Amino acid sequence: MKIYFAGSIRGGREDAALYLQIIEHLKNYGEVLTEHVGDPALTSAGDDGPTDRYIHDRDVEWLLQSDVLVAEVTAVSMGVGYEIGRAVAVGKKVLCLFRPDAGKNLSAMVAGCSGIKLVQYTSLSEAQSAIDQFWEENA
Amino acid sequence: MKIYFAGSIRGGREDAALYLQIIEHLKNYGEVLTEHVGDPALTSAGDDGPTDRYIHDRDVEWLLQSDVLVAEVTAVSMGVGYEIGRAVAVGKKVLCLFRPDAGKNLSAMVAGCSGIKLVQYTSLSEAQSAIDQFWEENA
Repeated sequence: MKIYFAGSIRGGREDAALYLQIIEHLKNYGEVLTEHVGDPALTSAGDDGPTDRYIHDRDVEWLLQSDVLVAEVTAVSMGVGYEIGRAVAVGKKVLCLFRPDAGKNLSAMVAGCSGIKLVQYTSLSEAQSAIDQFWEENA
Repeated sequence: MKIYFAGSIRGGREDAALYLQIIEHLKNYGEVLTEHVGDPALTSAGDDGPTDRYIHDRDVEWLLQSDVLVAEVTAVSMGVGYEIGRAVAVGKKVLCLFRPDAGKNLSAMVAGCSGIKLVQYTSLSEAQSAIDQFWEENA
């Protein structure tokens, strides 16, 4: 099982520590191809590859290889939106996790897409439970 | 010629007046299906339809019908990223306009995608010229 985890990089790294904890939980279910998204040393400069072309092509290849896309969608990120759009377009399984108490407005493109399982949560344990349930339903 | 213009709604409306001016220029080339994106009365609450499902399905239908996607990508927006991802996935022509002096980091998913024509600009007249040139090259 290959898992693509999507979280904000250049949109802002305020949730990076949370991404790391979600990635750790996802590892119970398979290989997380994008483990670097949770790296606390990765800043919003987004230097996770030598060029933007390299980063895009590597990430899209990983995305198309993966069985599931899991995205933390609270921090507003154009890259996460792009990855969700690419995944939905090819009918991939997509789980989006959103914290409504963070004061952000979730895009209607994510909130209104029938191809996405969207779960609102507050605590890490709720996010972990949402992941467990998603895998039960999609096993 | 049908044109889909993408700009931030729930990600923030600080560029709404600029979107309106870009849309006015795009009308020289065809019908802009998403003219409401430039409406100054549309706030970041994003109430441009009765439900999120309605907004998503209407916008994706417009996107798939359109001949060209033009996106202003300076304001960080998950919805704009999603729309670009959906457009690239089906091989649609995509023009992205970015203002580097606004202090935002453009996503590598946009900056590094070979399916996107990306133009950096400062003034409205430069954006208009970029649109004119894009149409000349893709006529």
